[in-house]
Amino acid sequence: MSATGSAQPRLERLKEILAVLADLGHAEQILDWDARVSMPHAGAKARADVAATLAEFSHRRFVTDEVGELLEQLTAEEDPDTADGALVRVTQREWDRERKIPSDLAGEMAQASGVGVAAWDEAKLSSDFAIFRPHLERQLELKHRYLACFPEADDPYDVLLDEYEEGLTTAQVEEVFGRLKGELVELVERHRDDAVADLKGPFPIAAQREAGRLVLEAFGWDPRSWRLDETPHPFASKPGAGDIRLTTHTDERDITSLFSTMHEFGHGVYEFDIDRSFARTPLGEGTSSAIHESQSRTWENLVGRSAGFWRWFYPQLQGLLPEALGGVDESSFVRAVSAVRPGLIRGDADEVTYGLHIILRFELERELLAGTVEVHDLPDVWNARMREYLSVDVPDDAHGVLQDMHWSAGLFGYFPTYQLGNVISVQIWRRAVDELGDLEEQFARGEFTVLREWLREQIYRHGSRYAPPELLRRVTGSGIDPEPYLEYLHAKFA
Amino acid sequence: MSATGSAQPRLERLKEILAVLADLGHAEQILDWDARVSMPHAGAKARADVAATLAEFSHRRFVTDEVGELLEQLTAEEDPDTADGALVRVTQREWDRERKIPSDLAGEMAQASGVGVAAWDEAKLSSDFAIFRPHLERQLELKHRYLACFPEADDPYDVLLDEYEEGLTTAQVEEVFGRLKGELVELVERHRDDAVADLKGPFPIAAQREAGRLVLEAFGWDPRSWRLDETPHPFASKPGAGDIRLTTHTDERDITSLFSTMHEFGHGVYEFDIDRSFARTPLGEGTSSAIHESQSRTWENLVGRSAGFWRWFYPQLQGLLPEALGGVDESSFVRAVSAVRPGLIRGDADEVTYGLHIILRFELERELLAGTVEVHDLPDVWNARMREYLSVDVPDDAHGVLQDMHWSAGLFGYFPTYQLGNVISVQIWRRAVDELGDLEEQFARGEFTVLREWLREQIYRHGSRYAPPELLRRVTGSGIDPEPYLEYLHAKFA
Repeated sequence: MSATGSAQPRLERLKEILAVLADLGHAEQILDWDARVSMPHAGAKARADVAATLAEFSHRRFVTDEVGELLEQLTAEEDPDTADGALVRVTQREWDRERKIPSDLAGEMAQASGVGVAAWDEAKLSSDFAIFRPHLERQLELKHRYLACFPEADDPYDVLLDEYEEGLTTAQVEEVFGRLKGELVELVERHRDDAVADLKGPFPIAAQREAGRLVLEAFGWDPRSWRLDETPHPFASKPGAGDIRLTTHTDERDITSLFSTMHEFGHGVYEFDIDRSFARTPLGEGTSSAIHESQSRTWENLVGRSAGFWRWFYPQLQGLLPEALGGVDESSFVRAVSAVRPGLIRGDADEVTYGLHIILRFELERELLAGTVEVHDLPDVWNARMREYLSVDVPDDAHGVLQDMHWSAGLFGYFPTYQLGNVISVQIWRRAVDELGDLEEQFARGEFTVLREWLREQIYRHGSRYAPPELLRRVTGSGIDPEPYLEYLHAKFA
Repeated sequence: MSATGSAQPRLERLKEILAVLADLGHAEQILDWDARVSMPHAGAKARADVAATLAEFSHRRFVTDEVGELLEQLTAEEDPDTADGALVRVTQREWDRERKIPSDLAGEMAQASGVGVAAWDEAKLSSDFAIFRPHLERQLELKHRYLACFPEADDPYDVLLDEYEEGLTTAQVEEVFGRLKGELVELVERHRDDAVADLKGPFPIAAQREAGRLVLEAFGWDPRSWRLDETPHPFASKPGAGDIRLTTHTDERDITSLFSTMHEFGHGVYEFDIDRSFARTPLGEGTSSAIHESQSRTWENLVGRSAGFWRWFYPQLQGLLPEALGGVDESSFVRAVSAVRPGLIRGDADEVTYGLHIILRFELERELLAGTVEVHDLPDVWNARMREYLSVDVPDDAHGVLQDMHWSAGLFGYFPTYQLGNVISVQIWRRAVDELGDLEEQFARGEFTVLREWLREQIYRHGSRYAPPELLRRVTGSGIDPEPYLEYLHAKFA
């Protein structure tokens, strides 16, 4: 038998196991989507049990000696430059990490996440940090147990980053954020009082929904595959090939739902456009959190806050919202929806202040994990830091430390990828404009296909085939570089 | 160690395994609920993969030698009159059946069900039996493979019935249905032309929803635990303790949504009121399909079509639907919503014709399985039989053989339990009236708590602790008996 011939049954066996694991992952996604969109509140405890059971099953099935041996043999046999070689590489990386964790810890983490999110939800509703506190303490305890499985790490935070962003180190984040922080603080100070139109609502819910629908249709939306729901915190999910779910948040008092919808479309289209032959394998999802976020930011900001986009869409939006927007001209509107306005909520932040919200979370996560900030002091520290970076006063914890669900779900090391996504989005955008010419002219005609196809070709279809640094280098010729992003901000707000 | 002492660790080990299996079952329920309520159409293929994987995992985990040995030891040790003894009995029964089936067949059946339901959905939409035909043939092939695992059965159909209704035999169904069939045909003939008010719509959707909400609130609805959605085919689901989901179908052209809502409430309240200490065990769900259906029929028909209920609710419904109902008096309305009107659709059938829809399906299932009716002849046979029993002409397959989803999901042996549920509902109702006195007076004041509490005490809280014949005997002192049901129908339509 040839080398290829002997490798084939092993590869098929591995793919068979990975397909089952992908199915379990899809089940977990449905459970999560349902918990956030549909589940009655009292179902949270039972749901956490189900999530824990699935996580533990899935973990046990993955970290077997059989999988380890298959990977070892296949690493020697498969050409790393092929998709199958990439599959082996990505799976090996996952296996190496998961193998270090006991399966029951995997189950406990899923359980704590289910219970924690429900408690956070309640705490946020009543703006009562005391309800959340024991759950955050539990998450930190679990995180320390998790990190103890990786004694070889230079910096424990590297372990957390690496889960979402292959190869990213704390030192690299510090370097990028260090470069950004001073510039962003300065930009905020310079532009916080820029005179812009004051957009006054109400912006009726039905009209906002219709606007979202029109934009999604123009971006390329297929009702056979996509759905859109309302949640307090928008997100996107793919619980199976051909099943793309976005959520948005519509509030009569502002028009941000449209930007949330475009943001989540970016996540959705990335997942939708992945090569279908990667379905039910670890290659069948976006390669990292930061690359994912770069795409949501592309559609939200680089497309959705561009002058060209609004040349096309503003007349339609005015038609839908005549009372609120009838007296606001197009360029005033475009400036208003981009204005630098320090605020309390990360999710509502403009492109300049956004990074400072992230830097604050990055710092606090590291301090919590190091024990230099205690959980019970967290609200005070949060509020002081918000004052320092953004000169805003936090009126209550619901608008402060309780605003994001991430820590309740045990997501530490995730926030930095949001800001790196912003940085990367501009790097990729430059390349797109170099190759495709004036996109704004196309947007002004309501045409987005050329951009979407280019992104599909360059990024989306590859799924996780290329590690994030390699993908970025293939597309832009460079590593993560904050300069294009800073130039973009300076130009935009000049 | 005492006998009790030595049994305890084994019982705990069994419960631990069963809790995990219950979690997997809950995950399957969520996937199913989602597929029917939320899933984009193109997600069906991936969803079928997930369902197959979970079914196979779950099956493999259950049919182990370890579980078999635990059960053998516990059967000897546990007092059968305790809840733990019942748990062992119920689990043993399940294990004996599942152990006979290969795990990969369990997976294949789940897969075929996911794919089959999606195909049926499409076939029904375009009223094209040809789309559905290969899937029905596949289901029958799988059913024969399944039945081949039970060579000892006297009648293979007994095996199918037993899955939904412990101890029920084909002979028993034939006896009950034999007694009903002639009487029902005669009742239909006698009353099909009864003069009743013609309820004319439109019945606006929002008003129907508000009516449903008011009734559910009076029945006892807690928004922390319950939700209500729209689906073409109403159903109820409990994907975890404290998580009760009903669906209904609202159509402007008739007011049946209210009856669907009350029907599904009956399923939901049974599941909701099960002793919480049974959660994550096989005792934590209703004991059988027929007992379940007896409760949905109780709330839909015995409560929801009673004179007392409408004395309370009709003024409110008139207030919500003034144009449609302003000119219809209460007693005309009550007669109209119960009128014997032979029609095409089982789900819309009155209390008299309903049984004939079921008898037709029972007969056809047996003929399909025996091969005396071929799948490609099924539409013709269906239509001829509808003509014979109900004197109606079937205009197309969407309103004929394609109307129900059951066969697409491989549910054979299920339909009979619907009609047995009708029969049982009246047996239990008589006992309730004997003990509680005039319920209609309470309903007329919008009070349903006394009935609900009695049902909870007698039936709901026990979950699957008692096999259906035992439960029925405990409550009514008798086995399944069609006479009270026939007397009820004769009296109601006299």
